[in-house]
Amino acid sequence: MNAPLDLAALMAEMGRKARAAASVLAQASAEDKQKAIHAAADALDAARAKVLAANSEDMAAGAERGMSTAFLDRLKLDDKRIDGIVSALRVVADLPDPVGTTIADWSRPNGLRISRVRTPLGVIGVIFESRPNVTADAGALCLKSGNAVILRGGSDSVRSSGAIHDALVAGLVAAGLPDDAIQLVPTTDRAAVGEMLKGLNGSIDVIVPRGGKTLVARVQEEARVPVFAHLEGLCHTYVDASADLAMAVSVVVNAKMRRTGICGATETLLIHRDILDTHLLPILTALREKGCEVRGDAEVLARLPDAVPATETDWRTEYEDAIISVKVVADVGEAIAHIEHYSSHHTEAVIAEDPAVVERFFAGIDSAILMHNASTQFADGGEFGFGGEIGIATGKMHARGPVGVEQLTSFKYLVRGTGQTRP
Amino acid sequence: MNAPLDLAALMAEMGRKARAAASVLAQASAEDKQKAIHAAADALDAARAKVLAANSEDMAAGAERGMSTAFLDRLKLDDKRIDGIVSALRVVADLPDPVGTTIADWSRPNGLRISRVRTPLGVIGVIFESRPNVTADAGALCLKSGNAVILRGGSDSVRSSGAIHDALVAGLVAAGLPDDAIQLVPTTDRAAVGEMLKGLNGSIDVIVPRGGKTLVARVQEEARVPVFAHLEGLCHTYVDASADLAMAVSVVVNAKMRRTGICGATETLLIHRDILDTHLLPILTALREKGCEVRGDAEVLARLPDAVPATETDWRTEYEDAIISVKVVADVGEAIAHIEHYSSHHTEAVIAEDPAVVERFFAGIDSAILMHNASTQFADGGEFGFGGEIGIATGKMHARGPVGVEQLTSFKYLVRGTGQTRP
Repeated sequence: MNAPLDLAALMAEMGRKARAAASVLAQASAEDKQKAIHAAADALDAARAKVLAANSEDMAAGAERGMSTAFLDRLKLDDKRIDGIVSALRVVADLPDPVGTTIADWSRPNGLRISRVRTPLGVIGVIFESRPNVTADAGALCLKSGNAVILRGGSDSVRSSGAIHDALVAGLVAAGLPDDAIQLVPTTDRAAVGEMLKGLNGSIDVIVPRGGKTLVARVQEEARVPVFAHLEGLCHTYVDASADLAMAVSVVVNAKMRRTGICGATETLLIHRDILDTHLLPILTALREKGCEVRGDAEVLARLPDAVPATETDWRTEYEDAIISVKVVADVGEAIAHIEHYSSHHTEAVIAEDPAVVERFFAGIDSAILMHNASTQFADGGEFGFGGEIGIATGKMHARGPVGVEQLTSFKYLVRGTGQTRP
Repeated sequence: MNAPLDLAALMAEMGRKARAAASVLAQASAEDKQKAIHAAADALDAARAKVLAANSEDMAAGAERGMSTAFLDRLKLDDKRIDGIVSALRVVADLPDPVGTTIADWSRPNGLRISRVRTPLGVIGVIFESRPNVTADAGALCLKSGNAVILRGGSDSVRSSGAIHDALVAGLVAAGLPDDAIQLVPTTDRAAVGEMLKGLNGSIDVIVPRGGKTLVARVQEEARVPVFAHLEGLCHTYVDASADLAMAVSVVVNAKMRRTGICGATETLLIHRDILDTHLLPILTALREKGCEVRGDAEVLARLPDAVPATETDWRTEYEDAIISVKVVADVGEAIAHIEHYSSHHTEAVIAEDPAVVERFFAGIDSAILMHNASTQFADGGEFGFGGEIGIATGKMHARGPVGVEQLTSFKYLVRGTGQTRP
């Protein structure tokens, strides 16, 4: 699909401006970046009425188009949500600046001193959907890591995102940084996404899609530049024979039911055959009390006859809903084999007291995050101490797991000599 | 271009075997991997006669096709070169094992302990040209880092590579590791490269091209999987007004003339206007004494009238030959601007005694490697202490600079709790 000439030209121009801004940002001081993000928070706080008015227009247009309640809830801003965006900006502003920090250093026998220091990646393209707060989160994380960013929000949130973007630009200006450092694509033409995925003539270094499966799948299919993405979070919790019962109940209930719509929610419970008589029903009963539907294999149905029979499809489904699939396994080896076969390699947890089981689980599964005796819902940049995340990557190149400011950097080598020549 | 069905099927099968081998390798012990590489070195040492006979056939076929002397020199093996391959294998065998090492660890206020540990990337596709030693180097580096590898060498070196590959497989078998961990594409059909670039149905995680510009450009254009590549090494050395004269002469001569065909060779010399009377002619005279052709701008020609006038093309050319382009600049700022405009972002050096100049040079240039008072020819994994390299990456995603065993790894997060649930 080729974009009309004027759109392609508009996007190419945005790319050029972003590249120029990135050169300036790469050398911006930590203080200026911090100041810009705090000033953006101030500007957003002061522009509340304008942002809420813009959001009301988006909400009205969405309701008119018959969008679902869940969709409208993601789109909606109110004073409390704006408070949340403002404070999230301040958290990112006050993070340690990653750029220029030394990752490693060593000396060579010939006296060369080598250090590996963090640098920005360059220009990041963020493609997101209805949540307008992503404008602020992504803009601030990219700025903090010294990158220019081109943001492309969903057409349904275009007025809300525009009002938030205005505040970010005000922050850049207040700190004397280039206002092209955070650009928002000013058109709802879907062809703009296609242009970004082609990389804007080499002006975009990496694409971060934040949204549902359809968006992420399109991005991974079409992108001609690197992508930090995960297709889905099909997460597992395995309860071993050595698990503490009370802990297993509370952790599994939290992993499934705290919030069912996030990518770190557990979708499948695997349980050791030896503890069916002691652990299975307490866990499933607690889940049901929270409103969770249970779909089980034959051994589960034998103990919980009114459960729904699980089919092959269930092991492959990220419900994002109050439903759990439950399978009985012979041991941690069978649990590992099931997970390696069905998982999206996002996050998996083992509940066990036996350290040998834990180490086997940690070594045998190649997922971004492995947890022991903890809820899979901790799979989150904020919970990891990253001060926020632009997404969670399940790929293995460059970034994996929560993508925070450090993951938005590259590095270069600085070599200090005293006149060495190579023999 | 679609490959014939049997080739596509052959390649897909290699991909499946590599993926299966990668699962085993990811959990192989450090001892087994070390043992396999030493055993491969033993096998190669013992199979010298067979390897040299295979290489003689490649050489005869190459001579018959009228290949250049330089080409035949890259293809040629003799006892000394086999010694070099054997000892390079042993160096890689004895490197610290990167897999499972902890990159970072920290605790959270809720008691969760998080660590980030190295994991293999998975399956690496290496596409190379005439140098048969790449078979051994790449095979050993991938194995050491726990990755399976699919090697595709040039058709001109197919017999030599095959004989070396036999030794690598013998090493795997001796250590009880899967013999599919290091596979060599058994056909010279160029369509095999196309199949690899498409990723073999998701079986290849990253492609490493090792060869000339045509190969690397094809790979970067066609690849549908991530690539660690550099298009060229257009490296610069800047001699500042504060440079020590004797050091400037010896470092520039080494940077240009030690070996002119490697990617870390300096192609353009930038020199500060204030030292034209003292530094320019000693440097250029020393270069000429080593047989280097000088191409200069107007100010250089004013002092060295028989130099060749440099054109715009010269600033854009990686000569890979005994030619240097020389430009006079007003200060480090103009040097940085020239480098940022023309460089391939591989390696640049500054010769200076003024620390402020060095820091400006280091901060202002976004190349993989920046050197101070040292020859650009140190841009090499071995010289960095990596024990070898599979190539030098000029991209900014995942790997940058020399790609050694650590750069061939990814990571995962291990989170250890005591029953934590997320509020």
